[in-house]
Amino acid sequence: MAASAVRMPETPARRGRPGYDLAGILRGAVAEFTEHGYDATSIALIAKRLGLSKAAIYHHVGSKEELLRLALDQALGALEGVLTEPGARDGAAADRLTHVLRGAVRVLVAELPSVTLLLRLRGNTEVERAALARRRRFDRAVTELMDAARDEGTLRDDIDPRVAERLLFGMINSIVEWYRPGGPEDVEALADDVLRLALEGLRR
Amino acid sequence: MAASAVRMPETPARRGRPGYDLAGILRGAVAEFTEHGYDATSIALIAKRLGLSKAAIYHHVGSKEELLRLALDQALGALEGVLTEPGARDGAAADRLTHVLRGAVRVLVAELPSVTLLLRLRGNTEVERAALARRRRFDRAVTELMDAARDEGTLRDDIDPRVAERLLFGMINSIVEWYRPGGPEDVEALADDVLRLALEGLRR
Repeated sequence: MAASAVRMPETPARRGRPGYDLAGILRGAVAEFTEHGYDATSIALIAKRLGLSKAAIYHHVGSKEELLRLALDQALGALEGVLTEPGARDGAAADRLTHVLRGAVRVLVAELPSVTLLLRLRGNTEVERAALARRRRFDRAVTELMDAARDEGTLRDDIDPRVAERLLFGMINSIVEWYRPGGPEDVEALADDVLRLALEGLRR
Repeated sequence: MAASAVRMPETPARRGRPGYDLAGILRGAVAEFTEHGYDATSIALIAKRLGLSKAAIYHHVGSKEELLRLALDQALGALEGVLTEPGARDGAAADRLTHVLRGAVRVLVAELPSVTLLLRLRGNTEVERAALARRRRFDRAVTELMDAARDEGTLRDDIDPRVAERLLFGMINSIVEWYRPGGPEDVEALADDVLRLALEGLRR
C-alpha cells in the first residue's frame, strides 16, 4: 500500500494545507539522503530542503528511518515486481533473463532516485541491511536465471559465472551515474543497447 | 618523480625514525579519503589513523591537498601509461582497444585504492576537478579507439557509441566494488572475462 501511495505524482496535500504529500516528502528525503548520506541527514534538513516545518513532515511519517524504509521499498518492490512478471517466469531461461534485464533497466530509469539511494547504501543501520539483503535476493534470482541459461546451452560457460553476474550488474547499475530521464536516450533504446552489449558483445 | 616514489613498497622512514614513508602515509590518506570523503578528512585524522603526529606527516607533504594530488596522480598516471604502450598505439583499432581495456583492468587491480578514490571524486576542489578532467581525457582516448574500430568495421555500429562507452566503463569501474587482490580471481583471468563479455557477449 505504502509502495503504491509513494509512487503517486505530487498532488496537493490532504486537508488543503499547502506543501507536499508523502510522495513529495519522500522525493525530498531521497535527494537529501543521496547528496549527504543517510547518517548526515535529519528530519530538520529534509524539512529545510522542502521549505516545510518538521511538524509537517511528522504529519506523514514517524521518523527519518521510515522515510528511508519507504524509499528503499519503492526501489526494491519495483525490482522484485519484474521477477513476478510472466516473461520472467515462463519460457526458455535465456528469454527470461532477457526479460529481467530489460525490466531492471526500466525500473532503474523509472525509479532513478530511489534505486540510486539503494545502490549507494553503506549498511550502517538495520533498515539498510534489510534492504541490502533484499537486493541480494534479487541478484541471486538473476544469477539463477544465468545458471539455467548456461545449463540450457544458450549462455557461454567460459566466463566465471559470479564474475559475469557482477560485471553485468556493474554495467546496468552504472546507468544511474549518467542517465537523466528526459535526455536523448529513450529507455527502450537504452535497454536494447544494454542487451546487445551484454548478450552479443561489441565486436561485429 | 613523486608518482614513482609513492609506488615504492613501504620501507623504513628516512632518518631512522619509526613510522611511515611517503608511500605509507599516502596509503593511509587514500583509505581515509575513501572511507570518509575528502572534505571530512584532515591531516589530524590521517595522523590518528596511522598513529603518527601531524608533524610526521608534514615532514613529507605540505597539505592534505598534496596527498590527494599525489594519490590521484598515481591512478591517472598508471591509466595514461597504458595509452602510451606499443600495443595501444600500433595495429588494428580493435586490437589496440583490447590492449587498452586489458590494461585498464590491470591498473584498476594494481592501483585499487587510488583508482577507487578517483572514481568516487565529487569534484568539490580544484585538485579534484583537474583529476576528473584528466580522467575524461583518458575516457575520450578510449572512445576514439572505439570510433576507429567501428570505422574499421570490427565493432558493431547498432549501439549508440556514447552509451556503449559508458556501459563499458561502468562495467570495468564496478570491479572496484567487489574485487579484492589476493582473492580467487586472478587479474589476467578477470581481464579475459571482461574482454569476453564486452567484445563477444554472454550468449553462446
